[in-house]
Amino acid sequence: MAARLPSAWKRFSSTITPRAAPPKAHHHAPIPDHAFPAGYALTGLHCGIKKTGGPDLAVILSTSPRPASAAACFTRNAFKAAPVVVSEQVLNNNGGRARALVINSGCANAVTGKQGMDDAWAMVRATDALLNPPSKGKSETLVMSTGVIGVNLPIAKIVAGIQSQSKQGKTLGSTFDAWERAAKAFMTTDTFPKLRARTFTVNGKEYRLAGMDKGAGMIHPDMGPPRSSGQLHATLLGCILTDAAVSPPSLQSALTYAVDRSFNSISVDGDMSTNDTIVVLANGAATDGSGAQEIDEQRDPEAYATFRDALTSFATELAQLVVRDGEGATKFVTVSVDGAATYEDARRIASQISTSALVKTALYGQDANWGRILAAAGAVPLSVPLHPTRVNVLFIPTDGSPALPLLVNGEPETVDEIRAKEILSAEDLAIRVELGLGEESAKYWTCDFSYEYVRINGDYRS
Amino acid sequence: MAARLPSAWKRFSSTITPRAAPPKAHHHAPIPDHAFPAGYALTGLHCGIKKTGGPDLAVILSTSPRPASAAACFTRNAFKAAPVVVSEQVLNNNGGRARALVINSGCANAVTGKQGMDDAWAMVRATDALLNPPSKGKSETLVMSTGVIGVNLPIAKIVAGIQSQSKQGKTLGSTFDAWERAAKAFMTTDTFPKLRARTFTVNGKEYRLAGMDKGAGMIHPDMGPPRSSGQLHATLLGCILTDAAVSPPSLQSALTYAVDRSFNSISVDGDMSTNDTIVVLANGAATDGSGAQEIDEQRDPEAYATFRDALTSFATELAQLVVRDGEGATKFVTVSVDGAATYEDARRIASQISTSALVKTALYGQDANWGRILAAAGAVPLSVPLHPTRVNVLFIPTDGSPALPLLVNGEPETVDEIRAKEILSAEDLAIRVELGLGEESAKYWTCDFSYEYVRINGDYRS
Repeated sequence: MAARLPSAWKRFSSTITPRAAPPKAHHHAPIPDHAFPAGYALTGLHCGIKKTGGPDLAVILSTSPRPASAAACFTRNAFKAAPVVVSEQVLNNNGGRARALVINSGCANAVTGKQGMDDAWAMVRATDALLNPPSKGKSETLVMSTGVIGVNLPIAKIVAGIQSQSKQGKTLGSTFDAWERAAKAFMTTDTFPKLRARTFTVNGKEYRLAGMDKGAGMIHPDMGPPRSSGQLHATLLGCILTDAAVSPPSLQSALTYAVDRSFNSISVDGDMSTNDTIVVLANGAATDGSGAQEIDEQRDPEAYATFRDALTSFATELAQLVVRDGEGATKFVTVSVDGAATYEDARRIASQISTSALVKTALYGQDANWGRILAAAGAVPLSVPLHPTRVNVLFIPTDGSPALPLLVNGEPETVDEIRAKEILSAEDLAIRVELGLGEESAKYWTCDFSYEYVRINGDYRS
Repeated sequence: MAARLPSAWKRFSSTITPRAAPPKAHHHAPIPDHAFPAGYALTGLHCGIKKTGGPDLAVILSTSPRPASAAACFTRNAFKAAPVVVSEQVLNNNGGRARALVINSGCANAVTGKQGMDDAWAMVRATDALLNPPSKGKSETLVMSTGVIGVNLPIAKIVAGIQSQSKQGKTLGSTFDAWERAAKAFMTTDTFPKLRARTFTVNGKEYRLAGMDKGAGMIHPDMGPPRSSGQLHATLLGCILTDAAVSPPSLQSALTYAVDRSFNSISVDGDMSTNDTIVVLANGAATDGSGAQEIDEQRDPEAYATFRDALTSFATELAQLVVRDGEGATKFVTVSVDGAATYEDARRIASQISTSALVKTALYGQDANWGRILAAAGAVPLSVPLHPTRVNVLFIPTDGSPALPLLVNGEPETVDEIRAKEILSAEDLAIRVELGLGEESAKYWTCDFSYEYVRINGDYRS
């Protein structure tokens, strides 16, 4: 560390140039129609919630005749929003099968009492009515909402919007345009729709995955598999659709694994929402008629592992998009913790660094203030105590150039401040903390804390 | 809740007026010389660390011939700064007695390896040399440092500064002026020195307490009594001096109790420092020659409880000053959680609300966004699960006017937004959350998150 002394007491004598968040729209691009999974029809439309007239309602149907396998992870917040409670019930009633999703943005339907529950069920039933073959008695639609808390949905407008998809002029389809409109209907403070597609191969057969999500604020999810009690609201919403056939228990198990390593490992502001929900549908449309069996963990562990890893990698890509578009974010930062005694220890430290206001403001200021990284790392209780003299901290540039050690075996390095500034001025960078205690590691993705973040959230409702 | 719909998607269409932190200097005022505890001599001086020339070194001596009882709470951060490690050793070596404190600001002497330990000991030994009667073999000085991490102290300047107090022209004294200079030497990004004094009465005898502290940033302390291992750095520093006589174990026990309910219940930015330290000295100068025995928990539990409560109340006042002067703070907010099943549950929720970036930016924006308060409350695991339909959330104005209910039995109230703005525009306000689960309660004190916070911390080192 250079001998330059701090000037912290000169409280009002220095300034950083306010930097607006860089444009993010280039993270969205067309995807060829044939790249999307077979057997889904979807749309996004304006039903009248958003004053701007932008899409605020998405409807997603599986057109495969048999019900798709469905799995979900929901927020662990004690104040679960109505759509979370209702989706949990639908999943439980159907033994992990579903054929439709309905999503609205602009209003979270959270802390809305009995009316909120009625409204969420009304969305479900209106969407059930679009299914072909018709639904038999039990609801087969999962529902998600995002927006402010404590405001009732304009339910008549929403139901009319859903019903418009059974009439002349309906916009349900399976082209890129349809997928993109659905992705846009997820957005709140997001600056671009988050839509991705890719393929994976199991036992020589190629399947397709597509997904969309939204985030921006109140993003520090902690989601688990559905449970049979609760009351809710959520702001990280996502869905992943595949044309593979997967048994419901294996789909849930793969999603839980994937979510822990993706959506549950991101932070924008450290605030857990009441509505966080990730849903996956696997409709088997790629294998219909081929007689192929469902992917199942018990029957073919190898095929299952391939699917689970493909799902995890894809979920990570979707989760990272949320961080990149975090409210006011000017940086996309990967925090790796290596050499921990346990995976949980590594995760705790990565989470603490990723949510530290001091680390995040230093990143915004492009300041190589590794002391704050260290203080955050030292703040969490661990199963095996840290040995400060074994700890290394490094900045990792993303352009392939050499890493910059800041602390080696607990001793500060003489940091080349010019090189540090160079790394910190990039939009993407990584922080690596090596503990020297074991073999476990974890990754988190976070963004910086900017003037823009304060501005966006100081007047969210006004 | 009004039916006004959110406009969150109009991301760039609205602004809040940037408000600078209000001037805080009026929270500092002269104290009559006779109000300070007897038997202490102190000073604050510029030894050459701060470039501004302001006080950066404080020396505090107990002039009572017998060693004062001493107790301390230190950061639980794994990366303990050298002064924390050294102070722990001094306290352990002396069985809870000490006669001096030395504090520097501008450099935390944290993550400074062996040199840092040598420097902290050099400060201790130079201060020991000022004691009268002279110290016999064992060091009797506790040491604290605050400032940036990873930079070595300019130790020659500091030692020369300490030694100047044994020479002609020394400034050690016991007037308000001397106390004020010492308090100023604690400051880093603080905007006013934090100095308070008061009296308390035990068994008909009046004693005096005085204290000073500093904070501003990296303020989310979690301090415990000294332990016999470690390595450290700290940014909440405080000392409390009394002329009462208290046995060392009872002094430690009272301080631990007081710190949990005061310094460990405040948050500026949620970041725990490597140097947090609170020290209390009780020199018995008020009773010297009177033959009065030390206050002791075993011998006279009632006298002990009186002392402990006086200490807790005084520590709370000092802790609140730190929040009021939090970096960029424009609000001073009391968060009360009542009706919890356990004290720990109440503390967890109060802490989560106090550190929520979304709650804190809404406070800055003077926005009655109770949904964020609720989401934060629901995010923590509790020993007894929340029943959302039992929860109330209220704003409590500090002018004695009626409270404003936001949520009653889990249902949103129709909020009078004009009245909400009125309460939120005051510098001081309180948020109360009632859980309806039991009899336990806890309080936290926090501030808002402003543009100014980002500015101060974006360029801390530059």
